Amino acid sequence: MNLYGFQTARRIVSGCNSLQSLRDHLGPLAQAKSALLITQASLLRFGFVQEILDQLSGLGIETDTLTDVLPEPTAANIEEMHEKIRHRPFELYIGVGGGSVLDATKILSVLKTNDKKVVDLLGTDLVDRPGVPTVLIPTTSGTGSEVTPNAIVTLPDEELKIGIVSRYLLPELVVMDPVLTRGLPKPITAATGMDAFTHSFESFISNKANPISDMFALESIRLISRSIAAAYHDGADLEARERMMIGSMYGGMALTSAGTAAVHALAYPLGGKYNIPHGVANSMLLPHVTEFNLDVITERLVPVAEAMGLTRGEIGAEEASRLVIDQLLAWTRELDIPQNLESYGVTPADVPALAEAAMKVTRLLNNNPKKVSEEDAAAIYRKLLP
Amino acid sequence: MNLYGFQTARRIVSGCNSLQSLRDHLGPLAQAKSALLITQASLLRFGFVQEILDQLSGLGIETDTLTDVLPEPTAANIEEMHEKIRHRPFELYIGVGGGSVLDATKILSVLKTNDKKVVDLLGTDLVDRPGVPTVLIPTTSGTGSEVTPNAIVTLPDEELKIGIVSRYLLPELVVMDPVLTRGLPKPITAATGMDAFTHSFESFISNKANPISDMFALESIRLISRSIAAAYHDGADLEARERMMIGSMYGGMALTSAGTAAVHALAYPLGGKYNIPHGVANSMLLPHVTEFNLDVITERLVPVAEAMGLTRGEIGAEEASRLVIDQLLAWTRELDIPQNLESYGVTPADVPALAEAAMKVTRLLNNNPKKVSEEDAAAIYRKLLP
Repeated sequence: MNLYGFQTARRIVSGCNSLQSLRDHLGPLAQAKSALLITQASLLRFGFVQEILDQLSGLGIETDTLTDVLPEPTAANIEEMHEKIRHRPFELYIGVGGGSVLDATKILSVLKTNDKKVVDLLGTDLVDRPGVPTVLIPTTSGTGSEVTPNAIVTLPDEELKIGIVSRYLLPELVVMDPVLTRGLPKPITAATGMDAFTHSFESFISNKANPISDMFALESIRLISRSIAAAYHDGADLEARERMMIGSMYGGMALTSAGTAAVHALAYPLGGKYNIPHGVANSMLLPHVTEFNLDVITERLVPVAEAMGLTRGEIGAEEASRLVIDQLLAWTRELDIPQNLESYGVTPADVPALAEAAMKVTRLLNNNPKKVSEEDAAAIYRKLLP
Repeated sequence: MNLYGFQTARRIVSGCNSLQSLRDHLGPLAQAKSALLITQASLLRFGFVQEILDQLSGLGIETDTLTDVLPEPTAANIEEMHEKIRHRPFELYIGVGGGSVLDATKILSVLKTNDKKVVDLLGTDLVDRPGVPTVLIPTTSGTGSEVTPNAIVTLPDEELKIGIVSRYLLPELVVMDPVLTRGLPKPITAATGMDAFTHSFESFISNKANPISDMFALESIRLISRSIAAAYHDGADLEARERMMIGSMYGGMALTSAGTAAVHALAYPLGGKYNIPHGVANSMLLPHVTEFNLDVITERLVPVAEAMGLTRGEIGAEEASRLVIDQLLAWTRELDIPQNLESYGVTPADVPALAEAAMKVTRLLNNNPKKVSEEDAAAIYRKLLP
């Protein structure tokens, strides 16, 4: 039996300046008496945080702001935040930020209603009941977290990142306003954009790929391929920013249905131990894992090459797949994606431990179209060392 | 400001024989103490109704069955059903059937929790609170109702059909099992399939078309165009049945985001007064309304023609749009779609009243890319009379 499925946020609103009409989209959430806005201190200087607070106040909703989310938050970071707010009567959590903020908001929401610690939730379907309703407002185009039932936690003691997967992590409302990404620095535009591309690319070649995930993945690949360089070179190009935002959301939808694979499995140890940002780790690994997978995904890369705008009409699978790899490598140059783990403190001596850690991410390795051995993983990491 | 959005069922499970694992997908709904299965008597002879009841019993859920849904149900039909069940403590409503059953299930769900009559709910956002949670299991591929926030009610006194639109009509779970459509009679396969095609086609040319609805609409057009004749000629072709089912679901997602237009506006009076099934009315009207719209949608029909598999590569817009119209007309012949309103009791003398009634469906006429006057509507109806 070949089953596949789809689930996403309850309601999604998109478009430039959509945040300005946030209040019109809240529906029943507007009846909350008090709401907590969760973000990072670095975002407070942007007008949009105040814009949200003002709109909530206008509806008679009391608000407070929590700005303690660390990049790629640890379990301890999330527990500390929860301790601060657990006895406050917030009826709505609003996450405004990149993947770290959105993931933290999702986890805080279910910590409030489930009598469990963060570490008890790591894995699939270990959340027992719905959390505080959430509104997620992304300020990067990459994570797709706003529409996935997943949240990633860093465990520094175990030098690993690990996921919580639960339908209860899905938000009630997502507001996708590309204007919020206009101020994104170039390296973050590149890394998060390639992260989104990786979600769609891996979903498309995943063992769990299906008609639903394929549609989202190819459309995401199409949108991102047309826009990532433009958004990188001119951050104020709102058309490119909008395509990146929709493309990254579709990446989240694709991975919800089909899962990611070896790129993500190999990226988690790089994040857990060396604090390499998730998007950077994925972008670094993507061309090399694709090269590794190549002999079993050649045919699948024909529609990918077409979606990337590299081909049109009939073309051989070998040629198409070569064009795809070439473009992935070209992007690393054009978008200044680092191709060297050494600058993050990784030495050749660290590779065996990295490969061993990657082998533990079986949830994702099982999705990879080609079996990855510990030696294979080590060889891939070594490509990113001098 | 150009806003657009998306909302759908909380969770969707697809694939041949997915119904056999219904219990695994219920999640928190499995905690219901009692559930009501809503269907039509004509479906009881199929094994799948018993299959559902057995699975629910296996979970310790008490069940009862309501089989009173009439085709294209009237407000009175729904009120009568509600009267029968309103004092029973069902915690879950499960609709199994075509669009009539799914729409009725959605309305019954909110009648239970809102102190209003059906007629009080007609329109947009007039439902005040969530209903009884629903599971929707389509047995036709056409309506898309399983994933839309809409439900259509027939008002015989006013000789009209009118919609209820509310986020609270969206179900908690949808099970899309193509095996359930294998027994669908040929005329229903044709009419419901073309209904689904019409949803996607109209969403794509709608004034509210947007990047999200376009993706669903084009993929739906692609899937249905590749499959409708195969499903019609060989109902047991499960690959074609699966593509039709996913295609019709995407049609529902497209119309949720972009709305339908003049075809649907002109179809409602045919359903309200002459009981012409919704799918048949849409299929009859589609080629003629498209011909009417042609001068303003020519460019938009280029990607439609490509999705329909009629062209590949560069082609002029005039030629592409001609190919689309020709295919729509060819389908009416191949699928035996009636092209004569007379057989339903409509005479030329009835046309003015029909056109007048169609003019009242402003919610949909406003989506049409070309203004439709009462005379235009009358001229379109006359094309379907000798």
